[in-house]
Amino acid sequence: MTMKVYDLVGADDRRFSPYCWRTRFALAIKGLEAEFIPMQFTQKHLIEFSGQDRVPVLVDGETCVHDSWTIAHYLDRAYPQRPSIFGDKADVGTLRFLNMWADRVVLRGIMPLIIQDIFEHIEPADREYFRTSREKTWGGRIEDIHTERDSRVVGFRKTLEPLRATLAEQPFVSGDQAGYADCMVFSCFQWARVMSDFKLLENDDPIFAWRDKMLDQFSGLAKSEPGYPF
Amino acid sequence: MTMKVYDLVGADDRRFSPYCWRTRFALAIKGLEAEFIPMQFTQKHLIEFSGQDRVPVLVDGETCVHDSWTIAHYLDRAYPQRPSIFGDKADVGTLRFLNMWADRVVLRGIMPLIIQDIFEHIEPADREYFRTSREKTWGGRIEDIHTERDSRVVGFRKTLEPLRATLAEQPFVSGDQAGYADCMVFSCFQWARVMSDFKLLENDDPIFAWRDKMLDQFSGLAKSEPGYPF
Repeated sequence: MTMKVYDLVGADDRRFSPYCWRTRFALAIKGLEAEFIPMQFTQKHLIEFSGQDRVPVLVDGETCVHDSWTIAHYLDRAYPQRPSIFGDKADVGTLRFLNMWADRVVLRGIMPLIIQDIFEHIEPADREYFRTSREKTWGGRIEDIHTERDSRVVGFRKTLEPLRATLAEQPFVSGDQAGYADCMVFSCFQWARVMSDFKLLENDDPIFAWRDKMLDQFSGLAKSEPGYPF
Repeated sequence: MTMKVYDLVGADDRRFSPYCWRTRFALAIKGLEAEFIPMQFTQKHLIEFSGQDRVPVLVDGETCVHDSWTIAHYLDRAYPQRPSIFGDKADVGTLRFLNMWADRVVLRGIMPLIIQDIFEHIEPADREYFRTSREKTWGGRIEDIHTERDSRVVGFRKTLEPLRATLAEQPFVSGDQAGYADCMVFSCFQWARVMSDFKLLENDDPIFAWRDKMLDQFSGLAKSEPGYPF
């Protein structure tokens, strides 16, 4: 039976959730297929069966798993004969750090820069939910946060310095080849690309070139999703 | 023949260089001994033979290696029968990211907070060198940078969020046990501990507890160096 993944969807079928992209990449690393079921912010009843309200939710036969990190672990455990997402035991710890860095620095850094673009690219029915929840988290109106993005992006680029320094030494975060570490970080840029034309990086930034390479990984998986040029 | 490591030294034989601490930890992971040769900032002639002017420099028989990252790799290559610092190939890439994060975020974040303490804890002969080089890098007088530390430490603590979030999920950065990832990050706190009594972390920060555990690793290697209480 085909696995199912519940996936956040915006207007025009845009699949933008960075966490759901992590699950897409995790499946690609394993060479596994899944049916992606679109869910709008205001359709959380679709995943009520999972006992919580956030995507991605993976359903594999009788098993239901949520949270991209937990899903990746599940896939490695359930399909040990396929390529490993996490590698040996020592890898998992440092990959968790990468996951946290992607969430706390990259994703949280990008959010205020594209918040209005996300608002405009989701279904009208989702806008009230998005505005209320995000304005509470960010302590301000979407439109006001948006006006600060040109100054804010300068600080954001600085916070990427550890990634930049790493990519100056090796082609991918994982080393010679793209691995799940790359996918976790790239998922944040893919999220932005699907929803926003805002220029997050300078063209001569090593992260810019890495991002292009990531679009081509896994037979162009990320590129196959419509989005704005970087 | 015993290996030699050239090591930065302050007043009262304080061994404070975070990079040299990384090499101490790398040797501890391998279970290797080395003689640590003290060098003040103004004694760079001692390592002229290495073709560059920064410590640590490792001398192993006819081989001379500098840079803590390169030294760790050398030790894994030269002593493959001993415990591995880097683990399998996939580990190296993400560990490089950790190394860059430790340098760019932790070390660079701590420097302005303890810069005057370092100045006061090095040999008087080294002070002019330290003042000139560091004031150029930081664009201000040591005393002025020092006065800003109470406000600056707030921002520093925030930048540690990915580490904090990781340690909320697992006891060490490397997972269940302390590994080189932990050592790279901890070396920055050890550097601070040896030179400064400034309170970098709140007592209830999970990083505070992790730091205590790191003092006890490798038979109390870090704790055996005199320093200030955390």
